Amino acid sequence: MTITPQHIAEMDAADPLAHFRDEFAIREGLIYLDGNSLGCLPKRTVARMNRAVTQEWAEGLITSWLGADWVNSPTRIGDKIGELLGAQAGEVIAGESTSINIFKALTAAVSLQEGRRVLLTETGNFPTDNYMMQGLARFGDLECREVEPDAVLDALDEDVAVLLLTQVHYKTARIRDMAQVTAKAHEKGVLVVWDLSHSAGAIEVDLNASNADFAVGCGYKFLNGGPGAPAFLFAARRHHHADPVLSGWFGHARPFDFDGQFEPAQGIDRFQCGTPPVLGMSALEEGVDLMLEADMSALRQKSIALSELFVDLMEQRCGEYGFEFICPKNSAERGSQVAFAHPEAYAMMQALKARDVIGDFRAPDIMRFGITPLYLSFADIAQGVERLRSICQSREWDRAEYRTRAAVT
Amino acid sequence: MTITPQHIAEMDAADPLAHFRDEFAIREGLIYLDGNSLGCLPKRTVARMNRAVTQEWAEGLITSWLGADWVNSPTRIGDKIGELLGAQAGEVIAGESTSINIFKALTAAVSLQEGRRVLLTETGNFPTDNYMMQGLARFGDLECREVEPDAVLDALDEDVAVLLLTQVHYKTARIRDMAQVTAKAHEKGVLVVWDLSHSAGAIEVDLNASNADFAVGCGYKFLNGGPGAPAFLFAARRHHHADPVLSGWFGHARPFDFDGQFEPAQGIDRFQCGTPPVLGMSALEEGVDLMLEADMSALRQKSIALSELFVDLMEQRCGEYGFEFICPKNSAERGSQVAFAHPEAYAMMQALKARDVIGDFRAPDIMRFGITPLYLSFADIAQGVERLRSICQSREWDRAEYRTRAAVT
Repeated sequence: MTITPQHIAEMDAADPLAHFRDEFAIREGLIYLDGNSLGCLPKRTVARMNRAVTQEWAEGLITSWLGADWVNSPTRIGDKIGELLGAQAGEVIAGESTSINIFKALTAAVSLQEGRRVLLTETGNFPTDNYMMQGLARFGDLECREVEPDAVLDALDEDVAVLLLTQVHYKTARIRDMAQVTAKAHEKGVLVVWDLSHSAGAIEVDLNASNADFAVGCGYKFLNGGPGAPAFLFAARRHHHADPVLSGWFGHARPFDFDGQFEPAQGIDRFQCGTPPVLGMSALEEGVDLMLEADMSALRQKSIALSELFVDLMEQRCGEYGFEFICPKNSAERGSQVAFAHPEAYAMMQALKARDVIGDFRAPDIMRFGITPLYLSFADIAQGVERLRSICQSREWDRAEYRTRAAVT
Repeated sequence: MTITPQHIAEMDAADPLAHFRDEFAIREGLIYLDGNSLGCLPKRTVARMNRAVTQEWAEGLITSWLGADWVNSPTRIGDKIGELLGAQAGEVIAGESTSINIFKALTAAVSLQEGRRVLLTETGNFPTDNYMMQGLARFGDLECREVEPDAVLDALDEDVAVLLLTQVHYKTARIRDMAQVTAKAHEKGVLVVWDLSHSAGAIEVDLNASNADFAVGCGYKFLNGGPGAPAFLFAARRHHHADPVLSGWFGHARPFDFDGQFEPAQGIDRFQCGTPPVLGMSALEEGVDLMLEADMSALRQKSIALSELFVDLMEQRCGEYGFEFICPKNSAERGSQVAFAHPEAYAMMQALKARDVIGDFRAPDIMRFGITPLYLSFADIAQGVERLRSICQSREWDRAEYRTRAAVT
């Protein structure tokens, strides 16, 4: 069936989440398909940042640690993120970067696994996950084992302390079955650390129903927490006795007693480390609060509908230009993005940018488009594909300026 | 000699840094003596944050990594901080918390010290420094050795890999002689990690002239970078081959190639880890830029003059109330704060707060007052001491409401 403008209009008219678009500051004309790299600015965040700077900081100064509850921001925001992910209150903290939280989760898991020295992951995992694992292994005299994605379950054995996996793959969008993988790992006594960077605010996650051990994730993608936003860490309550290797003062049982010896806090607080990054936390909280207003199941449904529209239109409108869809075809197995391989992926992404369509190039030849149902309409998707078609028709991408690689894309 | 209001007025009139006060948003009437805990808001930071949020984030979105140079913010701001500290360009990065940077510096130093397994520090060092060391030792099978402050130099031996010291003590303000300690340590083959949290922007520091190895420090104190601001890390160029244990993607030689194996960047970049916290970095940069406009030697001179005035007035006006000055009496050996022990320190600090004088209580019995010459006047000091005198005279501190301890002070 050919999709017509009429169909698109009907889908937008029937969209129960359409009103969320007004909550975001998005420039007229821009088709932003990169919210899985950096989410858009919630309008309410402007006022919040202004308050954080000109009231909490300037006027409250040091008294805002209590007065504006800065001191509890890691657990307060953590609890809210936990609500999105099927965690209980007191199982999630916000703070630091995803990379640092990966290190925290891996070392905590290792501390629980006396005698096991292998860290397992898959090749092609998001680089920083594996880099952090490699650094830990070098230092901690552990062994890194990286196997092909399909070989992960078979590689679980009694030597493996911890398995580190990303739930939604950053290139292919493939969703791992969290409950199933966790169960298989537990059969062999292996603990699992899940990276939820492309899951949180994107797909339905139920950490406790999946019997998850540890998880980390990113605040600046689907949670719309702002550039370089604080990340988060989940530790199941049964693991709260694990050793926090990055044992900074905010993880102490009584940080403001200024004791000489580290005594870990009870509960998730022990995985805090340095002073919380208050300004970043303020922006993150607004993004999370907004996400909590949306029904996660409706969000997922819309994400699937937008993605399917994208794929169908690519077939109909760009079918002759050699794009290869590299994500799982079954929507249930695909996260909230679509990606296509094309030999000219880099230049095309640049040409799209010149036409006010922003997506992500991922080496070597992938065009990745984030699907963020809170602020994308069906018309956005249709318009984005039309602009790509036009670029292909005219071979507009074949200009020197689009083929020159920048350091970051 | 009795200090008169006339003297105070003359000192303020002769102050070459007086105009900096206008650069800060400080409420009328407030005497803020806690800038060594959280620096005041530079007025220019308001516009910068607004730009970072409503232009760089909202409009530039992902393109701001290049377009607004977010990607280079760790080294760009690091270079500026380095300028304050006698480091060369390319020896300092900004980012993460002080605690995390302590871990980075300690592990980098240990990686250079094959066969040495002892981490040395002094008792009574700022807690997070020692906590991080303790966590590292537990995990890395290293030995933590904590000795009394005066025993540090004698404890240097061939087993010690790294000595961790704070240059300006957070309670007593005692300044360690960086060049002398470093030389003594090097004689025994020991590397030194300096915590400059109470030094940066407070006293004159010359890292390279002192032959320093590694240093870390805080962005939210004298640098006025905002609550929970990113911290910084210095590594002398000769140590840039050290192993970055926290090897996140921003420390990779080519982060945006998304390689599977970690290959450390050349230079200081290898000590980066996660995605930079852009909003916090923006605020930090304004604070650092402002500090760079001041002459560091004039700043130090004024800091000493303000501190001496404080001590003299405490003697003159509060001499009969039992305060014990716990800092070095020689100004050259004292950082930019003064501290007094008093059995009622906690209640008095609360009573001062009710009178709009903000200082810091540090357990068990210390009243700590930060001296921040960029925005404090001599009149502020005189006024602060007067209010304390009045509280002592009236025994105003002896109210139940001031004696009840809060979790954070």
